Amino acid sequence: MAAVKVHGSPFSTATMRVTACLFEKQLEFEFVSVNLREREHKKEPFISLNPFGQVPAFEDGDLQLFESRAITQYIVQEYAEKGTQLISRGSKEMAITLVWLEVESQHYDTPASKLVWELAIKPMYGMSSDTVEVEESEAKLGTVLDIYEKRLSEFKYLAGDCFSLVDLHHLPTIQYLMNSQTRKLFESRPRVHAWVADITARPAWSKVLAMQNKN
Amino acid sequence: MAAVKVHGSPFSTATMRVTACLFEKQLEFEFVSVNLREREHKKEPFISLNPFGQVPAFEDGDLQLFESRAITQYIVQEYAEKGTQLISRGSKEMAITLVWLEVESQHYDTPASKLVWELAIKPMYGMSSDTVEVEESEAKLGTVLDIYEKRLSEFKYLAGDCFSLVDLHHLPTIQYLMNSQTRKLFESRPRVHAWVADITARPAWSKVLAMQNKN
Repeated sequence: MAAVKVHGSPFSTATMRVTACLFEKQLEFEFVSVNLREREHKKEPFISLNPFGQVPAFEDGDLQLFESRAITQYIVQEYAEKGTQLISRGSKEMAITLVWLEVESQHYDTPASKLVWELAIKPMYGMSSDTVEVEESEAKLGTVLDIYEKRLSEFKYLAGDCFSLVDLHHLPTIQYLMNSQTRKLFESRPRVHAWVADITARPAWSKVLAMQNKN
Repeated sequence: MAAVKVHGSPFSTATMRVTACLFEKQLEFEFVSVNLREREHKKEPFISLNPFGQVPAFEDGDLQLFESRAITQYIVQEYAEKGTQLISRGSKEMAITLVWLEVESQHYDTPASKLVWELAIKPMYGMSSDTVEVEESEAKLGTVLDIYEKRLSEFKYLAGDCFSLVDLHHLPTIQYLMNSQTRKLFESRPRVHAWVADITARPAWSKVLAMQNKN
């Protein structure tokens, strides 16, 4: 039995962020499926793993964590010698990585996650999208992607010239949005488009998507 | 001339987060005032320091950073031996700190910052508060503070038994909200109330507030 356990749903963007990181690091893990339709994430035993009642939760031996971005940062530091590096070692390179991790979390994620909800999740549940919300979120996302387009003219990836945790954190929302009308925002910016093609082609990412077909 | 420079406003919560950290670490720094009313944060030279046009920006020699939570994490790692520790050294303690840093950023900050805007900033600019927004944000903040009340029954501070970057990140919004109607949400929870009294009494925090009186 693997020491590392992920409790989540293979369709949840936050869960996918963690499994993508584990596959990049070539770490074995046990996946414990949490049924979101049955609202298992709001009940025991899950709620003892995360008092906020959101997937995923994570265990490594007796260490219990939640919040996908904290889990991935723990994994890359604890298993530094395994698989893809994902984070720089020098203090200045690490500082730049921290800046762009915050950019994803503070600027990119809010409009991107709203669009995933409106254009991918609500239709799955038979709900209709809020067109005003979609329009506002696309405008905000466009502003962020303009800054990414400039950044990607200077560096191959967002934190520098190597694929890192910063790029990885974007993958789940990009996957949903590239199957929606919002695809045009990524495709109309050449460097962003090339970056999306590059990071979604990673073998570790295929393994995350393959988990959706098993469920 | 100090190698460390902070470009910001002494009234901006994100700027205060960074100066609080610098005072805790007993680091000298030069403060470069950015006039937000004149929208200097949206123009050159500031916009070259942060393409998102938000204060603060930070310099340490030739290293240029933005995003307050990335800056504070850089400071505590780069100047580990100076001033207050602010972050744990062991990988498991560090992982727990990362979780609660994310809780502040992902759960606490959104409603807290909305309330600061509605109840502190808008009145300063002669604008009236949106009562529906206030009510919704107070409900969300209350849910977060219920989880904090439980956490603070187990540990003296949010990341464990020592004051850390997690507690520090809350200080600027708490300062504004304790001078607003939202004060009741903190005062009605005994352990949260004691924690607020403890962290706002720190000498480093007084120095952050003293900067407001100079401007």
